[in-house]
Amino acid sequence: MISFKNDYSEGAHPAILRSLMETNLIQTDGYGDDPYTAEAVALLKRHIGREDVDIHLLPGGTQTNLTALAAFMRPHEAAIAAHTGHILVHETGAIEATGHKVLAANCEDGKLTPALIQAVVDAHTDEHMVKPRLVYISNSTEIGSIYLKHELAAISACCRRNGLLLYLDGARLGSALCAAENDLTLHEISRLVDAFYIGATKNGALLGEALVICREALQADFRYHMKQKGALLAKGRLLGLQFKTLFADELYFDLARHANAMAAVLGDAIRQAGYRFLTASPTNQLFPIFPNQVVEQLEKEFAFYRWESVDENHTAVRLVTSWATSDSAVAAFAAALPKRAQ
Amino acid sequence: MISFKNDYSEGAHPAILRSLMETNLIQTDGYGDDPYTAEAVALLKRHIGREDVDIHLLPGGTQTNLTALAAFMRPHEAAIAAHTGHILVHETGAIEATGHKVLAANCEDGKLTPALIQAVVDAHTDEHMVKPRLVYISNSTEIGSIYLKHELAAISACCRRNGLLLYLDGARLGSALCAAENDLTLHEISRLVDAFYIGATKNGALLGEALVICREALQADFRYHMKQKGALLAKGRLLGLQFKTLFADELYFDLARHANAMAAVLGDAIRQAGYRFLTASPTNQLFPIFPNQVVEQLEKEFAFYRWESVDENHTAVRLVTSWATSDSAVAAFAAALPKRAQ
Amino acid sequence: MISFKNDYSEGAHPAILRSLMETNLIQTDGYGDDPYTAEAVALLKRHIGREDVDIHLLPGGTQTNLTALAAFMRPHEAAIAAHTGHILVHETGAIEATGHKVLAANCEDGKLTPALIQAVVDAHTDEHMVKPRLVYISNSTEIGSIYLKHELAAISACCRRNGLLLYLDGARLGSALCAAENDLTLHEISRLVDAFYIGATKNGALLGEALVICREALQADFRYHMKQKGALLAKGRLLGLQFKTLFADELYFDLARHANAMAAVLGDAIRQAGYRFLTASPTNQLFPIFPNQVVEQLEKEFAFYRWESVDENHTAVRLVTSWATSDSAVAAFAAALPKRAQ
Amino acid sequence: MISFKNDYSEGAHPAILRSLMETNLIQTDGYGDDPYTAEAVALLKRHIGREDVDIHLLPGGTQTNLTALAAFMRPHEAAIAAHTGHILVHETGAIEATGHKVLAANCEDGKLTPALIQAVVDAHTDEHMVKPRLVYISNSTEIGSIYLKHELAAISACCRRNGLLLYLDGARLGSALCAAENDLTLHEISRLVDAFYIGATKNGALLGEALVICREALQADFRYHMKQKGALLAKGRLLGLQFKTLFADELYFDLARHANAMAAVLGDAIRQAGYRFLTASPTNQLFPIFPNQVVEQLEKEFAFYRWESVDENHTAVRLVTSWATSDSAVAAFAAALPKRAQ
Repeated sequence: MISFKNDYSEGAHPAILRSLMETNLIQTDGYGDDPYTAEAVALLKRHIGREDVDIHLLPGGTQTNLTALAAFMRPHEAAIAAHTGHILVHETGAIEATGHKVLAANCEDGKLTPALIQAVVDAHTDEHMVKPRLVYISNSTEIGSIYLKHELAAISACCRRNGLLLYLDGARLGSALCAAENDLTLHEISRLVDAFYIGATKNGALLGEALVICREALQADFRYHMKQKGALLAKGRLLGLQFKTLFADELYFDLARHANAMAAVLGDAIRQAGYRFLTASPTNQLFPIFPNQVVEQLEKEFAFYRWESVDENHTAVRLVTSWATSDSAVAAFAAALPKRAQ
Repeated sequence: MISFKNDYSEGAHPAILRSLMETNLIQTDGYGDDPYTAEAVALLKRHIGREDVDIHLLPGGTQTNLTALAAFMRPHEAAIAAHTGHILVHETGAIEATGHKVLAANCEDGKLTPALIQAVVDAHTDEHMVKPRLVYISNSTEIGSIYLKHELAAISACCRRNGLLLYLDGARLGSALCAAENDLTLHEISRLVDAFYIGATKNGALLGEALVICREALQADFRYHMKQKGALLAKGRLLGLQFKTLFADELYFDLARHANAMAAVLGDAIRQAGYRFLTASPTNQLFPIFPNQVVEQLEKEFAFYRWESVDENHTAVRLVTSWATSDSAVAAFAAALPKRAQ
Repeated sequence: MISFKNDYSEGAHPAILRSLMETNLIQTDGYGDDPYTAEAVALLKRHIGREDVDIHLLPGGTQTNLTALAAFMRPHEAAIAAHTGHILVHETGAIEATGHKVLAANCEDGKLTPALIQAVVDAHTDEHMVKPRLVYISNSTEIGSIYLKHELAAISACCRRNGLLLYLDGARLGSALCAAENDLTLHEISRLVDAFYIGATKNGALLGEALVICREALQADFRYHMKQKGALLAKGRLLGLQFKTLFADELYFDLARHANAMAAVLGDAIRQAGYRFLTASPTNQLFPIFPNQVVEQLEKEFAFYRWESVDENHTAVRLVTSWATSDSAVAAFAAALPKRAQ
Repeated sequence: MISFKNDYSEGAHPAILRSLMETNLIQTDGYGDDPYTAEAVALLKRHIGREDVDIHLLPGGTQTNLTALAAFMRPHEAAIAAHTGHILVHETGAIEATGHKVLAANCEDGKLTPALIQAVVDAHTDEHMVKPRLVYISNSTEIGSIYLKHELAAISACCRRNGLLLYLDGARLGSALCAAENDLTLHEISRLVDAFYIGATKNGALLGEALVICREALQADFRYHMKQKGALLAKGRLLGLQFKTLFADELYFDLARHANAMAAVLGDAIRQAGYRFLTASPTNQLFPIFPNQVVEQLEKEFAFYRWESVDENHTAVRLVTSWATSDSAVAAFAAALPKRAQ
């Protein structure tokens, strides 16, 4: 059975496994004090075009989010997230477990706006309520949409006006930056947000996210927080080698482009078969709406998540492509998909 | 420079890398719902000789300790640990960060005893103090010693008498179980403790610890705790494959035996050169005491930690061997070590 | 200026001050181990009609909520509250600060229903989300409404079906139980919920809430949680004497009846002057809607909170009566209120 | 039976009850926004001799400690306390429950020293350990001793050298400042520490501690922390009125002087009867050592705590005097105490 369940269904890009093999018996210090991590950080800084950011490699997305947000906020401070935000709904209360409320803003396309943020800020007027302190956004979002430069700039300005930190969850940042309509660069992101992470687990690595702390005031002592939250791997080289491999040249972006291209082909096939989508997504997640019997039929050959029930007879599903998705897998899906009944 | 700094200086045992290569493009579900993890768990249960334990694979030791202890204790409950215990001193307050005090018991050889435990329990008399609830021990301990069967049985009985949970940190359990004087089996441990973990990061894996929850009352909902604490890897297969490889046959134990054997050779050489040790260790960590100028001389060729200053002129250092330590590395150290001046 | 801002604008009912005076120099043990607390607990049990509940006296409402909920839930568990619930919006993230998410259910009248609760439960399907564990309701609610017996029974049944604890915040329970339309008794409440508190700060005491833990499984070690959260007053007698005074006879209910009666007179006057209300409230909180210029005029003579803007020209305000509200204060407000312009 | 168990065995000083009576029906705003609290704060500032400190009134000592320390420290930071420190042993892990380790320093007389503090700091060398950030001391200490000016100044200098905050728990600060050998003033304390509290629960109030935040960087948003931790009383006037009464003139100090004087008389009687003390205490707590049969005999007429077993035949007990201790109570104890057998 072919799976479109997610972008972490396979192992790692072969170049990563090769680098693990080649360096396997070389001794290094632990906990990220190894030369591979140092090289990875240097490469990431070059890609970002800044030397004054702090970069840490962590094992996973929830881990990165909870470690960073707990480090950045004081006890009475809260994060603001889209009502579809990963930290709000899909991390088992990880942020709350560190003591902080996450405030939801309802939005249609997975994206926050200055108006949505301002409304939350304005509703919190005194010490009987939490103090909004950090805005959490994802790019691409949990439903595949992306932020354009003017949108991110507007959010950034709103945050600075209100004394809010801006944090960008980049679990699928590769796919966002490689989307056709994207007009943002890593460098611009680093200027507009206070911290963000460059996700690799969902773009070719075995595991690993690179947290970039742009605001100097947030940089102190971050390794303490990593160790306390269990995010400091003994064999930190495992993360260093992967990011070194992905960012030595353009591999990270090549993999994301491939995933996006496969999604585009898949999306076209679905569109041509007559179906519409729950959300417009230029990235590697698609949310087509199928009649329930079509869903059941497809499930015999393909693995994917049912996202939500649209009406009694229709269901939106999620299809995810990755660096490893093959033309033949996409073609098989297109072939299996019946034309929409008129 | 040859490193005896720790047992996580290299990558992974080649058999592990091979299994990663061979399965790399096979699609699986995420978060540990993959067939490799299922096989690893089945193999671990066979090695333990019990089907009624719950087994979860987590990325690292601190992560495992904090996830388990936070899941097992209510807010007013505290853990008891040796004053040298890893959770007490070397995890940046990870347990306290989940809300729980760790109570220290002073001991000479890194090992708790019923008397030490009982003294802590007896000192906590009412609701103005935390309620001791869980005893944390490490095997091998942080200073290389191990628990014999009668010692662990006595601690276990003490815990049951006092309504205490018993948790064993097995970051170096392989080395402990393969020590010459060891008389414990995985099965016996599973009967004497309420939960323990089988560490692989320090015994040949890239990362990974297998938490075994023996007491049924502690098993419910554990995956929620893993997700909340960031311990549920998207590509859980990475952990599954490694434990499958280590426990398909005796590889895990073979690697530990090798590390112990290398330590034995190294220890003999040090003893024959006329030096004594801070602690007697039958496992893969040695704590010889050298004159300061010998330490400085050795540091030119070998990497290791200075453990503690013994007196003005002498320092105890820590030497760690691993599955990857070569005969030649040990021989080089022995050759470089000057005979003790009489 | 006469204040209708809240029901804690004055000191304590004179009978309470008298009891403090009369017993002032009698020595007692601390931390609630005094005879007055014992008498208060015995009286409360008699009023509830049960001996098998555990009762603890705590200083305030937020303190009671956070101590109880932290004690009752495991780390991955969450509370469900109305979107107007006090713990959700007006306690500065006190519950989240103990590690637990509070899930909001949108409701119109401040009251949860089985359908609202079930929808939240059904939306939480696996370990990537928190596990709903406790339903938090307030009676009277934050907007003055109350639960009828059949409503509370239905919620209770829903909770038991779903394995949820039911917790009732009774900051204004006196006013609720003395409302004209109320059909619940303390005894019935104790059978339908797992824990609730009887608020006295807002009904004649200087401070104090009596937490009643009905479910035996939640009773163990509760004083540890109180001490840990700072809720165990050294001079616990202060709480004991107040509850003893309020429950020696019917004083607690007499005071609540008075507050309700004053609200009824005030409400009638407002209604007769031609105004309508944001919510129907049979208790001591009223939410009339006035033209903005009427609000400004009233503010010259009376203190009260602007609750929310209803439209460009109208504002809902909150008027609260208490055990201490005088006929003359109500008459003054009625006299100052202009008839509604036709 | 006469109790020397503690200094919170009675109600409040009559002047406090009088002020409650006199103001009882005057309406005020809640949560400390009342004129009595404002007056109390102004009086406290006058006594301290500084306008640039922030002062907040909280209900109790554990509450004050946990609210302040949680507000002042970041997640990876830890407090240092004497091994007898209240936060370390007698607050049910309240500080740890907010996420912070408390590091113990062993000392003989309940007092920290620069050397003890420096040793803890020096033992914490990297991110695998917590970062010491705050030094917690009590004056008078938990065993009755006090800090002299040069001692506090030396600790203060040590803290500043090491980037540590200095926090003074003043649950019994009145008794300390009124001890014969004391040479510190409130003003000097405010210059040497970063925050401290002036305890009233143990010096004549029903409840109440005045937290003084001296360091400006710690002052922001403190009321948020109070609300979140349940420390913001609805009827904040109750705290305001008490501190206003105690500090309108010298009442607070008069009461402490009385308690100390009674302790001095009691101590002389014990000394003259031939007994020695576990610790030298110039304040209102005495720790005489009696033969066990004397303890048993005294327990028939007097209430007090057995502090610790000194040897097989002797026990140290704790005797506490207060603002309310009468000459006759002390005389009764002296009369009941048998002369020490030679």
